[in-house]
Amino acid sequence: MFDSVRLPHKLDKAEFAEISERLREKLLDAQFEFGERKQKSLLLLINGSDGAGKGEVLNRLYEWLDDHSLETLSYGAPTEEERTRPLEWRYWRDMPGKGRIGLVIGGWHHRLLHHRAQGKISRAAFESGLDEINRSEEMLRNEGVVLVKVWLHVEDSVAQKRLAKLRENGGGLKRAVVIEWDDIKGARERQKLARSALDLVEKTSTGYAPWAVVAAEDARYRDAAVAELLLVALERANAESAARAPAPTPAPTQPADIPALPRASLVGALDLSHRADAERYGETLDALQGRLSELTTSRKFAHRGLVLVFEGNDAAGKGGAIRRVRAALDPRRFRVQGISAPTDEELARPYLWRFWRHLPRLGHTAIFDRSWYGRVLVERVEGFCSRDDWMRAYTEINDFERQMTRARILVIKFWLAISQEEQLARFASRASRPAKRYKITEEDWRNRGKWPQYEEAANEMIDRTNAQRAPWTLVESNDKKYSRLKVLRTIVERLEEEL
Amino acid sequence: MFDSVRLPHKLDKAEFAEISERLREKLLDAQFEFGERKQKSLLLLINGSDGAGKGEVLNRLYEWLDDHSLETLSYGAPTEEERTRPLEWRYWRDMPGKGRIGLVIGGWHHRLLHHRAQGKISRAAFESGLDEINRSEEMLRNEGVVLVKVWLHVEDSVAQKRLAKLRENGGGLKRAVVIEWDDIKGARERQKLARSALDLVEKTSTGYAPWAVVAAEDARYRDAAVAELLLVALERANAESAARAPAPTPAPTQPADIPALPRASLVGALDLSHRADAERYGETLDALQGRLSELTTSRKFAHRGLVLVFEGNDAAGKGGAIRRVRAALDPRRFRVQGISAPTDEELARPYLWRFWRHLPRLGHTAIFDRSWYGRVLVERVEGFCSRDDWMRAYTEINDFERQMTRARILVIKFWLAISQEEQLARFASRASRPAKRYKITEEDWRNRGKWPQYEEAANEMIDRTNAQRAPWTLVESNDKKYSRLKVLRTIVERLEEEL
Repeated sequence: MFDSVRLPHKLDKAEFAEISERLREKLLDAQFEFGERKQKSLLLLINGSDGAGKGEVLNRLYEWLDDHSLETLSYGAPTEEERTRPLEWRYWRDMPGKGRIGLVIGGWHHRLLHHRAQGKISRAAFESGLDEINRSEEMLRNEGVVLVKVWLHVEDSVAQKRLAKLRENGGGLKRAVVIEWDDIKGARERQKLARSALDLVEKTSTGYAPWAVVAAEDARYRDAAVAELLLVALERANAESAARAPAPTPAPTQPADIPALPRASLVGALDLSHRADAERYGETLDALQGRLSELTTSRKFAHRGLVLVFEGNDAAGKGGAIRRVRAALDPRRFRVQGISAPTDEELARPYLWRFWRHLPRLGHTAIFDRSWYGRVLVERVEGFCSRDDWMRAYTEINDFERQMTRARILVIKFWLAISQEEQLARFASRASRPAKRYKITEEDWRNRGKWPQYEEAANEMIDRTNAQRAPWTLVESNDKKYSRLKVLRTIVERLEEEL
Repeated sequence: MFDSVRLPHKLDKAEFAEISERLREKLLDAQFEFGERKQKSLLLLINGSDGAGKGEVLNRLYEWLDDHSLETLSYGAPTEEERTRPLEWRYWRDMPGKGRIGLVIGGWHHRLLHHRAQGKISRAAFESGLDEINRSEEMLRNEGVVLVKVWLHVEDSVAQKRLAKLRENGGGLKRAVVIEWDDIKGARERQKLARSALDLVEKTSTGYAPWAVVAAEDARYRDAAVAELLLVALERANAESAARAPAPTPAPTQPADIPALPRASLVGALDLSHRADAERYGETLDALQGRLSELTTSRKFAHRGLVLVFEGNDAAGKGGAIRRVRAALDPRRFRVQGISAPTDEELARPYLWRFWRHLPRLGHTAIFDRSWYGRVLVERVEGFCSRDDWMRAYTEINDFERQMTRARILVIKFWLAISQEEQLARFASRASRPAKRYKITEEDWRNRGKWPQYEEAANEMIDRTNAQRAPWTLVESNDKKYSRLKVLRTIVERLEEEL
């Protein structure tokens, strides 16, 4: 693969002067238009052998581009902050907004390859890592992130020479990305590394995000070639943004005239008559809260994280349940995250970004009052996104939760269900009590009118995301006390199992 | 996942009569429109536990649909014919054309799952098989094949009872699909099977081809639900075909006004001055042909296949080289496949179909005079397909060739290169000799005008598909004798290595 990179690729000074002048001008125009359109963001991933000049390319791009909408995302060994989060967290944290360009050094490919070369992961784990990368990149593409994947190639002999020179010069080296590869020294290890790199480039070259391998021995050629790749990508993205048809009206789940089968629904099948023993409620609540407090302050919990997801019908009592859970937690180590309409910042990034930013570090708890499931609930029912978007969201959500659980975060998901009659009673009661009136809006009444669609969406959501590692708990919530106790008991039991 | 399927799903006779009458009418309309539009084909994959009634569903669909554009694709243990080809061959062989519906029983998911349940493949191999399935299905979707993936679910206890009954009735059972699962009997094995099935459904539920799990205990509900899924898919496909914008003008690889770097090209870097020793040519040719004949009639070759791909500049001597190879082969066991414009049959199916149909069985040789690389050569340069199509083709081709090599087919690929001057001389000579005049057309002259674009396309093709298991051999062909000897020698050497 990519053998042509071994051919001589050179630009003499005059050629470079001419080409670079034209490239610069075009680049600035394209970057400006890209920033103005604010339709997509772009990640330029600069990978390749040590000594190939990744840092130099970076410098050149800063020289040629407008640095206001440019950011460098450089990753070495994980920092302490990063080690307490899922692997993928740091890439999400740094995701540039629409109209902006991120220059990535030491990104996800690099990390996987490095682990493989060091023998930290098996061949099978490496392969499955590559497949996971492809899924993530497909998701990013669908979310409007343009990926330009560049592999800078120099022959190993050349790289070694350059590294030796860098080493002589001493001091500055420690800070260079280069150091990361430096621990892979033996000839056999380096060969293995080269083979794995080839596998990586082959397997993760997809139609939507292909690799470009650039001959990096001649610095002038290298810099011009990377700039050209960036320019082509920007111009293509701009052309696509310009041609973009207005968002299609989302197709209804079911064409209107198709005879509908009666649907059996998990949510609809719940027996909502469950009631707590009112007399013993206070006592049981105390006991559960006490146990939860013990568990979440235990030494074992320090190496775990906890994510609680609350979804359910309007007025099902999410807030009340959350308050009972929260009361048992150390206030320094939890956060309740209410999810309502996304901010501008959030709209400018891939959908899952707004949730990644609120993931807890190890030893902490994040409580989501509504969550990433919004895409397959409200966004689906209200037609805020297309069918393609919410259909692919199931897979993306399963991947997302797998990334959390793999990082030792326990994910517990609740669906709080009430009957239509109970909801009506609660709405009426809220409307009549001044202190609670803010909790009931026009929108709530409108949503109520779409009860069957919401139920269908909830049921499909549970069917498609009830993963073994992150199962749903359906909570019969017509009786608030019953609901709260069930929520607490579920959390306590899961923690007891897991810790 | 899909727990709602465990809820009671039933239709009584009257409900079924009403729903089925309306479903039938709609189905026929939708099927008719689907057939008229001829834009897509549809595969309905019916999977699920034994005893769930796959065969009965099939019967029902034949009753309700027009059987003229319907075909059953049913797969059991591979036949002798199938065992001598790559695993995937039988699915390709049966691929329905546009406007047609295939009902698939025992398809690719079934096979993988069965192997896993029998312990024939490791967990890692199973996972990587699932990823491969996703890639294939994405390709099918991109090629206009609608996939409806149905999993019929009955509880294991119900299934066992039904199977026992079938067994009592004896005779007919052997022919039923049911028998395939029947060898997985132990409770632990069946549990493992169920868990693997869950993994399969989770991992291969993608946005573009999600699973639908259907409660199959009640036959009426089951049949109506499958018919409804089919109807929704047909209506959606018809709506998409109706809305389909005219094919976009393919974007040029490089926007016209971007300063182009000088490209180093593998093809361009060849030293075309190589010449064969004319005096010893006949002798060497004889020796190589003799050796090739020995090798391809050896006992070891009986368990291998050979695919030879010839690509190159017009008039580079592909035909002459092929004749020299062919002369050494047993005429009963090779086939030369000239690839020109696709037939109607071929246009109605996914791109790779026309090549799958010509794959050799084990012990045989297929010689492709031009090949699947057409998509990234002529179709790219002439704008016959979009950039997205040829960009994804690299990945698809690498997958395709991996499927061949895994099935013990040796894939050898030649690029025959001549200089522009040599081509001109050959064109002129052809034009002046009546017997050869048919070999030179207007189109050849037009292609010649696009030399740089073809060279760029060839170079990128070699860079992106020069896989270790199926490498390219570049053949300097200004001297025909040199070219022919190099081709023969490469084949002989590769066979000697591999047998």
